[in-house]
Amino acid sequence: MFLTSEPIRLGVAGLGRAFVLMLRTFQNDPRVKLVAAAAPRAESRAAFEAEFGGRGYSCVEEMAEDPEVEAVYIATPHQMHAEHVAIFAAAGKHILVDKPLSVTMEDADMMVEAARSAGVHLIVGPSHSFDPSVLHARQIIESGEFGAVRMVQAFNYTDFLYRPRRPEELRTEEGGGVLFSQGVHQIDIVRLLCGGRAKSVTAMTGVWDPERPTEGAYSALLDFEAGSFASVTYSGYAHFDSDIWMDNVAELGGMKDPANYGEARRALQTLDSAAETKLKATRTYGAGTVPPIAQNNEHFGPILILSDRADLRLRPGGIDIFGDTERQHIEVPLNAAPRKTVIDALEAAVRKNIAPPQTAAWGRASLEVCHAILDSAETGEKIPLTRQCGVEFQEETL
Amino acid sequence: MFLTSEPIRLGVAGLGRAFVLMLRTFQNDPRVKLVAAAAPRAESRAAFEAEFGGRGYSCVEEMAEDPEVEAVYIATPHQMHAEHVAIFAAAGKHILVDKPLSVTMEDADMMVEAARSAGVHLIVGPSHSFDPSVLHARQIIESGEFGAVRMVQAFNYTDFLYRPRRPEELRTEEGGGVLFSQGVHQIDIVRLLCGGRAKSVTAMTGVWDPERPTEGAYSALLDFEAGSFASVTYSGYAHFDSDIWMDNVAELGGMKDPANYGEARRALQTLDSAAETKLKATRTYGAGTVPPIAQNNEHFGPILILSDRADLRLRPGGIDIFGDTERQHIEVPLNAAPRKTVIDALEAAVRKNIAPPQTAAWGRASLEVCHAILDSAETGEKIPLTRQCGVEFQEETL
Repeated sequence: MFLTSEPIRLGVAGLGRAFVLMLRTFQNDPRVKLVAAAAPRAESRAAFEAEFGGRGYSCVEEMAEDPEVEAVYIATPHQMHAEHVAIFAAAGKHILVDKPLSVTMEDADMMVEAARSAGVHLIVGPSHSFDPSVLHARQIIESGEFGAVRMVQAFNYTDFLYRPRRPEELRTEEGGGVLFSQGVHQIDIVRLLCGGRAKSVTAMTGVWDPERPTEGAYSALLDFEAGSFASVTYSGYAHFDSDIWMDNVAELGGMKDPANYGEARRALQTLDSAAETKLKATRTYGAGTVPPIAQNNEHFGPILILSDRADLRLRPGGIDIFGDTERQHIEVPLNAAPRKTVIDALEAAVRKNIAPPQTAAWGRASLEVCHAILDSAETGEKIPLTRQCGVEFQEETL
Repeated sequence: MFLTSEPIRLGVAGLGRAFVLMLRTFQNDPRVKLVAAAAPRAESRAAFEAEFGGRGYSCVEEMAEDPEVEAVYIATPHQMHAEHVAIFAAAGKHILVDKPLSVTMEDADMMVEAARSAGVHLIVGPSHSFDPSVLHARQIIESGEFGAVRMVQAFNYTDFLYRPRRPEELRTEEGGGVLFSQGVHQIDIVRLLCGGRAKSVTAMTGVWDPERPTEGAYSALLDFEAGSFASVTYSGYAHFDSDIWMDNVAELGGMKDPANYGEARRALQTLDSAAETKLKATRTYGAGTVPPIAQNNEHFGPILILSDRADLRLRPGGIDIFGDTERQHIEVPLNAAPRKTVIDALEAAVRKNIAPPQTAAWGRASLEVCHAILDSAETGEKIPLTRQCGVEFQEETL
């Protein structure tokens, strides 16, 4: 193990939208240094080499052999995660893999085993379970100050389904739809707040737009071993926007401009599928603009945590605590670098051998809930869960 | 039948809190005239006689024989509704019975049959399904302008459990807890918006305060024959208050004062059960103050209706319509008399022989959902529903 305060030498697999959304982190957090990137597009590699001075590779296998790379951030499309994790784990690299861990449970099993047998850390992130308010809420819960968590309600109404998509992002079996991209955030958050081990899921899903025939909405009820339950709801159909109840802060921390109402749907209305794929490509690294550093913490919609002696309401800037007789607001300030908490976890794992809760087994457990939501909606049954894991900060060491 | 524009000559059974909450309606709507009241407390009867000039009766049987009474408003405790409906129906009086219709399904069956065989109208109300925004939303849905309703989300966080209670109001088997008093509102609303006929319920409930050992919270998923589904959540544990997302308007239309945070719980903290019962009695008719006429429509917490081409958000003052590319606000103005819509329904039934959706069969269907929520939480099973009825405006005539 490296036990040093040197920056973590990171390789990036995939220079698409996910990487763009991590760019401000990599540019601003001195604890990571990007030394390599693997991407099929030459333009992306050239942009990477120009910006970071690292080495560009056209395939991940080559990057896996780069001895300077200590750890990798896998930001390739969902369905490729498993193959790429196998390659990097076998090469002894620690892994930060973007959510969802994978699309299929078989892949997830393989990835858990790949990391374990190789003796590398695998962290699933970024995900909104790393949002500062969420982590702070988890600390409050662990303090026991307000007693047991009894119920969590999370909901989020967005324009997800009408953002530019590649065709496979609208095919559920390939990881498309709101469950694998969005639901997994909500599930990660709710599991973190409720102790991790869900017992069962009952859910309904909505496939309401024949032009985009994948799940665009769901509502689910979960119960947890710790005794609490959760209600989670999501719609990506771009009408009501729940960010009005999050101080008008957008998911990524920017301020929303009411004048832009309906822009996602409007932008798509004149496009065919090929033009949409092209538009999506303009959101990749090196091809378009990079979002500015947000002035607020990221969030994933309104989240309410009911415990014995207080309810917590998560907001981008902090946590409202509604106690038995008094209320207070705890500020959760903006970090110096966006998504600093993800790098906190990566650094703790790579430099101190301390894993965060969001391990491969954790990611598999959240993925299991995604599948259970789809299964419950299809069969009308309550789906028992068998692959859950708890919130074990600092427990899983190699 | 009376087919006249004369005021409906109404008798009131029960002069407790429910009557107090209807008082402003009776004082201000010229279409009803209170001619009689039955109540065990002599002080309440005296207050009634002094205010309305009607006749006070110490028991409902006597009032049932009063030939001047055309219709009755039954505002007695839940568990007495069935007996009182039987008495008034047998006497040929039309009936407005406060929600819930009854506590047990057996009573509900008996009441449906009692009204049917006597040839009288039975309306379950007031309930928040009569709220102006809810009725207006139903009209929008029926117009088809925005396509099919796909999903409804309703939630409400209140201090219900800490308002002064008589002991039986904290015993579930006697109709206590949030399901029968509060849940039934939410279910009425959601059923009205989703076409009435729910197919099944999966739910979890919370009994979190050992001092008040009845259901204080629940979350449930319902699916409907019409194809939509609903997520409903309620907490009466008095921490987070969802009225902040309803323009700070309270359930009954008054404005909330943030300085009063926690007052319900604080007021109870020094009381034993006997003192609490006494405090509750100060909220009855003739014993205390009457709430002023509210300056806003009543509501039952945030309600979102997702349909194909728009989401509707119900607010006290109207409906926000979030369409595909544009949003608009439809104002739903305050009526001249509070709860005018309940009297609209009563007048249409008594004077025009046109029943509203909220008939005895409707009330039984909502009660069935309440019981299904309790049953699902207890057994962990999805509960199929068998006693549902649709939204049949103007169809059921005698």
